[in-house]
Amino acid sequence: MQTIGYAADGASAPLKPYSFQRRGLRPDDVAMEILYSGVCHSDLHQARNDWSEWGPTRYPVVPGHEIIGRVTAVGSAVTRHRVGDAVAVGCMVDSCLACDQCRAGEEQFCREGMTATYNGRDRVTGDTTYGGYSKHLVVRQEFALSVPEGLDLARAAPLLCAGITTYSPLRTWGVGPGSRVAVVGLGGLGHMAVKLAAGLGAQVTVISRSARNAAEAKALGADSVLVSGDSAAMATQASAFDLIIDTIPVQHDVTPYMHLLDVDGTLVLVGQIGALDPTTSAPMVFGRRRIAGSPIGGIAQTQEMLDFCARKNILPECEVIRMDQINEAFERMQRSDVRYRFVIDMASLSMPA
Amino acid sequence: MQTIGYAADGASAPLKPYSFQRRGLRPDDVAMEILYSGVCHSDLHQARNDWSEWGPTRYPVVPGHEIIGRVTAVGSAVTRHRVGDAVAVGCMVDSCLACDQCRAGEEQFCREGMTATYNGRDRVTGDTTYGGYSKHLVVRQEFALSVPEGLDLARAAPLLCAGITTYSPLRTWGVGPGSRVAVVGLGGLGHMAVKLAAGLGAQVTVISRSARNAAEAKALGADSVLVSGDSAAMATQASAFDLIIDTIPVQHDVTPYMHLLDVDGTLVLVGQIGALDPTTSAPMVFGRRRIAGSPIGGIAQTQEMLDFCARKNILPECEVIRMDQINEAFERMQRSDVRYRFVIDMASLSMPA
Repeated sequence: MQTIGYAADGASAPLKPYSFQRRGLRPDDVAMEILYSGVCHSDLHQARNDWSEWGPTRYPVVPGHEIIGRVTAVGSAVTRHRVGDAVAVGCMVDSCLACDQCRAGEEQFCREGMTATYNGRDRVTGDTTYGGYSKHLVVRQEFALSVPEGLDLARAAPLLCAGITTYSPLRTWGVGPGSRVAVVGLGGLGHMAVKLAAGLGAQVTVISRSARNAAEAKALGADSVLVSGDSAAMATQASAFDLIIDTIPVQHDVTPYMHLLDVDGTLVLVGQIGALDPTTSAPMVFGRRRIAGSPIGGIAQTQEMLDFCARKNILPECEVIRMDQINEAFERMQRSDVRYRFVIDMASLSMPA
Repeated sequence: MQTIGYAADGASAPLKPYSFQRRGLRPDDVAMEILYSGVCHSDLHQARNDWSEWGPTRYPVVPGHEIIGRVTAVGSAVTRHRVGDAVAVGCMVDSCLACDQCRAGEEQFCREGMTATYNGRDRVTGDTTYGGYSKHLVVRQEFALSVPEGLDLARAAPLLCAGITTYSPLRTWGVGPGSRVAVVGLGGLGHMAVKLAAGLGAQVTVISRSARNAAEAKALGADSVLVSGDSAAMATQASAFDLIIDTIPVQHDVTPYMHLLDVDGTLVLVGQIGALDPTTSAPMVFGRRRIAGSPIGGIAQTQEMLDFCARKNILPECEVIRMDQINEAFERMQRSDVRYRFVIDMASLSMPA
C-alpha cells in the first residue's frame, strides 16, 4: 500500500514529507488509517540518533509510536478487530509471542526482542519499521489495541507511550488507595503519572523545582507540591513516600529524592535512558530502599490502561498540531514549551494527488 | 557490674584493655558472660571513625556486635531467658517496640532509631553503648536471641551480623528452590551468602575477579563461578540471575553486573555504605531491573536464621583468635587475609585480679 509520512534523512535533518510502501496484508494483519499521532520525546532522540548506543537510527526514519487509527482492512485470520474499529498502536508492533515473557503478557521483554514501531526490524522481512507520523499503518492484530467507546481519539494518542510508561510502574509496585506516590518532573510523562496515580486512589505529591507549578499540579490531581530546592520542606518529607516516579528526561542526581522514600520504597526511573549522576548506597542500605527503571507495559496491561482511562475519564493534556508543524514542535518540546503533549492531527497530511 | 573489654581511644589508636561498668539489671534485662565475639569489618570502620557522616564515633569505643554468651542473671520481669541459657546479641540492643516497624518485626527500621550495640545511646540513660569485645553484657531480653541446641557456639558468632545481613535479603526477595542467585565478593559476608542461598535451595553462582576462588566457592556450596574479568563468560550470563548479593565492601561500579539480572531482578548492596561509582539507567529501564540496599534483619528474622542454620548445620568459616590479637586481626582483615571471619574467644580476656 502506498502511503505518505514525515521522515528525517539524517541526525541533523528536519522532518519532511516522505512517500513509502506499507506491506500488503498478512493473514493476521490489520490495516488502519492513522487519525492522530502523539509526539514523544523519544521521537526526537531517535530522529537525532541520540540512542546509537542501543541501536543506531536507520534513515530515513518515520517516528511516532502513540498512534490512534481506524481499521480499513483486515487479513483473513483476523478475529480481534473489524473494519471501522477505533484502534491504537504503541511502541511495539511484534514479538515472538512464544517465550516466557510473551506468554506472561510482557511482550516488551520478549526474549527475541520486541519489534519497535519505528526503527525496528520486521520479523518476517527484516525491513525497517516506520512509525505513526504517517497516513496508514499495517500491524499484526495482537499489537493493535481496542480504543474503548467514549475515549476522545485525539487526546488518547499519548496514552500509548506516556500513559503506559507511567501506568505500568504504578501497577508493578501495587499503587492503590493509601499509597503515597511522588512524581518528579511535570512534563508529558509526569502529568500522566499524576493523573493515573490519583485515578488509582493514591495520595499524590509533585516534586518540582519551583512552586510555580503548584496550581497546575493540583489541577491535574496532585494533593500537594514539594519544592525540591526547599531543604526544610524536603527534610519534613523524609520517609514519606512508597513510590517515586522520576520522569526527568536528562541526566540527573537521584540522591536528593532517596531519603523521601519509606522503608522498602522504590524510585522508578522512566524518563531517561543513560548515565546517572553518582549516588550513594547509604539510603538504600539504611532503609532497604530501591532504585529501579521501567519501560512500557505489555499489551494486556496497555489495554487495561486504556479501559481504565475510559472508565475514569483520564486523558492527557494535549496541543493538537498539523503535521507540517512537527519541526517547530520538536524545538518547543526541547524547551519544555508544551502543556503537556503534542498530538499530530493526521487529517492535516494529504496523500499526494 | 564491673567488666573489662578492649577499646580504642581515637581514630588512629589501637585497641587496648579497658575497664568499665555495665548497668545494673533493669526488670527486663538479662546479664550474660560473653563467650565469643565475631570481628566485623564495620568494627574497624567504627573504631577508625570512617562513618562519621552517619554519626561520629564516641571514644572510647568498645566494638563487637556478633556476640554469643551465657545468661548469668535475669531481671525480675524476664520471661524469655533463664540463667545458663546460651544467648546471642547482634547489631542492636533496643528500639521503641511500639512503632509500625517494630510491630512488624523490623526493629532495625524503628521510627525512633534502633539502639546500636556499640556507639549507640541507651534509651533510658543516654549513655554510650559498649559492644561485644568484653567479658559481660547487659541487654533487654527482647534483643537477646536464643541459640538453638547443637549450634557450635564459637562459629555461631558471625551469624549475628554477617549471617543476618545476607539471610535477610535472601528472604526479602523470596529466594528458594529454583531461584538463581549470584554472590559478588567472597569474604565474611559473601561466604555466608553462598552457604545461606544454597541452604535455601537456590542455584548459586559466585562472581569473582579470578578463577582462583573456584574450588573454595564450590566447597562453600556454589554451583558455579563466573569470572568478572572474562567478558565472554559475562556475556553468556546475561539475564541469568534473579538476585545478586553484592558484598563488595568498598566503593565500586555495579554496572558490569546489572545486565546479568533477568527482568525484575535486583542487585542488593550489603557490603558498602557510601559513594557508588556512576552508573547508567539503561539496564534498569530496559529490563525493569533494580538496585537496592539491605541492612540487618529484625529480631524475629534473626531468630529464624539461627534456627535455620542449626537445622541445616550452616556455620561460618572462622579463625578463632585471642583478644590480644585484635589489632593484628584488623590489619589482616583490611588485607582480606582471613578465611572468612575472625572470632575472639573471650576466655582469652581475664578480669583484672
